[in-house]
Amino acid sequence: MNYGVVFYILGWILKSEAIFLMFPFVVGLIYGENQGFSFLITAGICLVCGVLLNLKKPKKGGLFLKEGYFVVALGWIIMSLFGALPFVMCGEIPRYIDAVFETASGFSTTGATILTNVEVVSHACLFWRSFTHLLGGMGVFVFLSALLPMLGGNTINLMKAESTGPSVDKLVPRIKDTVKILYSVYLAMGALECIILLICGLDLFESLCTTFGTIGTGGFGTRNDSIASMSPAIQWVVTIFMILSGVNYSMYFLILRKKFKQALSMEEIRLYFFVIVVAVVAISINISNMYPTMSETVRTASFQVGTLITSTGFATTDYDMWPEFSKTILILCMFMGACAGSTGGGIKMSRILILWKSFKNQIRNLIHPRSVTKVRMDGSVVDDETVHTTLVYLAVFFIIFAASTLILSADGHDFTTNFTAVLATLNNMGPGMNKVGPTCNFAFFSDLSKLTLIFDMLAGRLELFPLILVITPTSWKKNL
Amino acid sequence: MNYGVVFYILGWILKSEAIFLMFPFVVGLIYGENQGFSFLITAGICLVCGVLLNLKKPKKGGLFLKEGYFVVALGWIIMSLFGALPFVMCGEIPRYIDAVFETASGFSTTGATILTNVEVVSHACLFWRSFTHLLGGMGVFVFLSALLPMLGGNTINLMKAESTGPSVDKLVPRIKDTVKILYSVYLAMGALECIILLICGLDLFESLCTTFGTIGTGGFGTRNDSIASMSPAIQWVVTIFMILSGVNYSMYFLILRKKFKQALSMEEIRLYFFVIVVAVVAISINISNMYPTMSETVRTASFQVGTLITSTGFATTDYDMWPEFSKTILILCMFMGACAGSTGGGIKMSRILILWKSFKNQIRNLIHPRSVTKVRMDGSVVDDETVHTTLVYLAVFFIIFAASTLILSADGHDFTTNFTAVLATLNNMGPGMNKVGPTCNFAFFSDLSKLTLIFDMLAGRLELFPLILVITPTSWKKNL
Repeated sequence: MNYGVVFYILGWILKSEAIFLMFPFVVGLIYGENQGFSFLITAGICLVCGVLLNLKKPKKGGLFLKEGYFVVALGWIIMSLFGALPFVMCGEIPRYIDAVFETASGFSTTGATILTNVEVVSHACLFWRSFTHLLGGMGVFVFLSALLPMLGGNTINLMKAESTGPSVDKLVPRIKDTVKILYSVYLAMGALECIILLICGLDLFESLCTTFGTIGTGGFGTRNDSIASMSPAIQWVVTIFMILSGVNYSMYFLILRKKFKQALSMEEIRLYFFVIVVAVVAISINISNMYPTMSETVRTASFQVGTLITSTGFATTDYDMWPEFSKTILILCMFMGACAGSTGGGIKMSRILILWKSFKNQIRNLIHPRSVTKVRMDGSVVDDETVHTTLVYLAVFFIIFAASTLILSADGHDFTTNFTAVLATLNNMGPGMNKVGPTCNFAFFSDLSKLTLIFDMLAGRLELFPLILVITPTSWKKNL
Repeated sequence: MNYGVVFYILGWILKSEAIFLMFPFVVGLIYGENQGFSFLITAGICLVCGVLLNLKKPKKGGLFLKEGYFVVALGWIIMSLFGALPFVMCGEIPRYIDAVFETASGFSTTGATILTNVEVVSHACLFWRSFTHLLGGMGVFVFLSALLPMLGGNTINLMKAESTGPSVDKLVPRIKDTVKILYSVYLAMGALECIILLICGLDLFESLCTTFGTIGTGGFGTRNDSIASMSPAIQWVVTIFMILSGVNYSMYFLILRKKFKQALSMEEIRLYFFVIVVAVVAISINISNMYPTMSETVRTASFQVGTLITSTGFATTDYDMWPEFSKTILILCMFMGACAGSTGGGIKMSRILILWKSFKNQIRNLIHPRSVTKVRMDGSVVDDETVHTTLVYLAVFFIIFAASTLILSADGHDFTTNFTAVLATLNNMGPGMNKVGPTCNFAFFSDLSKLTLIFDMLAGRLELFPLILVITPTSWKKNL
């Protein structure tokens, strides 16, 4: 491990976090809340630590895939550890582990909360919770990589570690330009949603927080009932922007380049919308007798499908009360997740496609033993390496899933609770079912379970391997 | 598809089933039960159909992997369809779909039942239920392949389709000798258990049925409480023989050849016993306050771990009442399953090892990008093909799992019931949890759900691909 460059980048991350922490401080000032000062103090701590880490410039800027994974995983852990401090300082989340849970949940855009009543929490803290979604959604390192000139061409390895999906495309030859395009689309979409929410009658604070939760596919809200008490119009706006946030950002790039045909023929996008439509129709039929009007039925079904397939985690209804068929569709949506290259979580549509095509190939090879067929996506061959990694990813996913469920089971809660709690955190969803259903929270778990779920949230957001690398002792060895 | 050879082999399968059906007929005669005659009639039907299918000898005996998979899958379906007839004829299982469920459950050594009270069922029918475990355990085609001279060297493809695990070894160069060794060990183990059970005081009928259920890792019993009302000594005997039946039969072959060191150094066997010991210890500690003595605690824990990891499905206690931690361990044991090359079900220890090693390789490649490491088992390299197939197997497993759970959910039962019902059938276990717990049965499911579970049982026993091949329309095309 090239510790010089690792420490250097971590220093920059902490300095960036210091800047980010000034936003909730300003919110605190506006609302005249004392809680705001805990953000100022934490910003100072981050700044000092960041400057100390940056005292020694690394000799060579070599940043291989290993270092990329390593520094991103460590960076996200450190961001969560420091970002949790204000909650404890101002007393609104007294226990540090709970505060770390909340912050990791925010950065990883999970949206699982240990708060039992968010309506008594200060504006500064609520803003910080939601703001972490904005930062975590597109990724902090991706952003940083555009700013740090010293990293040069190696920043692709930071991006590989932080972006979602089995393979990372540079949309344009220069990575700096790719990052600029990604963030422009991301922020433009956020600005648009925020304006529409303001027009719909939400105040600026709630519009901002809801927007952060939507486009980061996070799910922290400002009300105890999430989005349920907001108007139908707002619910539709949130639904549409959630679904748009789950789309592979390459599509927006293609649309910006006016390559509409190519954009709409992306297999992943097609599967994504196909699954959404099928799920909404099936659930609408299944729950039609539970809601007074058809429009409410469709709105509620669309919202819940959108929120769970994109792993956002907002709620407008207690879907735990729905019939088992609809609940199972929702669980399957949770597993599948959104598109690669989006801010959403889950296994991802492109991985599902690769799995499905590998499976079809296996059968085809059985029927025609002499034909050699490769997995193809959008017309071009997916290399064997990616297919293999995707298959191993799935295996690792289920190993972590099984281990986490086992650890949680020691708390004695029922199987559905444990199973969906792990699912909700590993896929960065937020709410699960039963005791962790959309009207509940994660406060009742033991510290060991909370630690496990914190690991799952970060592992899920960073797609497993970076976090596993950090807990593998041999990876800490110095490079020879 | 080479239909000539397919029909020819299916004819032989039906003729064999006619012979097998004579056993319960004889049992019926001994106990003076009229139900026995339904077996005689069915044997006649099988014989006629078999002879008709065998009228036309196939021109060439080519039996490729595709035909092997195809004929084995069709054969198992046909055996279940014909084997179900006596239950309907004698009226003890009036509905045909229930009878097929029971028979497929028997042949696939699942042991899931739709009977609510087995103690009122005739000896002939009980014997047939258990006898199907004996036939299904080691496989009918494996047996047949030694008898059918026309198949020549191609019989390895029948064996590949019917044996468990990611790769099939010919223990000795000639497949006929391999089959002979396998069946000798299998039947010797059965004879030994039966004699010990007789000594322990069980009558001949129950000894035979219990033995069939044990060494076939099936789990159909002769009493409503399964093994619970039998003596502790009998419970220990069954525990030990269940665990021995879950061992890779290659070990017994090596022991017969006096290669003890090689036998005990098989990684799969080591993992298998390691998991059993860890699970028994963990559960014993967890449930120690629920049973009066330590010996009863350990016996109950061992029995339940043994019955579920080998996918047998006998029960001595309602583990559904155990604490969640123990239940989750049991669910993980159910997933893992027994060794490859055994009569047990589940994902199999050797697949778990391949998955784990692929995962470790992935991490190692990340840390040392230039090193090329292969997955090794017992010292030799596992070829990429097997690793790939194993990973795809896992993907297919979860696709079938998800689809089945979704279909079952339409019945409206709770998630744990649906989830463990699919787990119990796809892994050929028998009982699940909640409404399909060890004290319950599968009678309450809808016909569609039962059909799904029948598919899962057979797919699980034949390791997915053969059954998928049969439902793939293109595989039915005639060879050019």
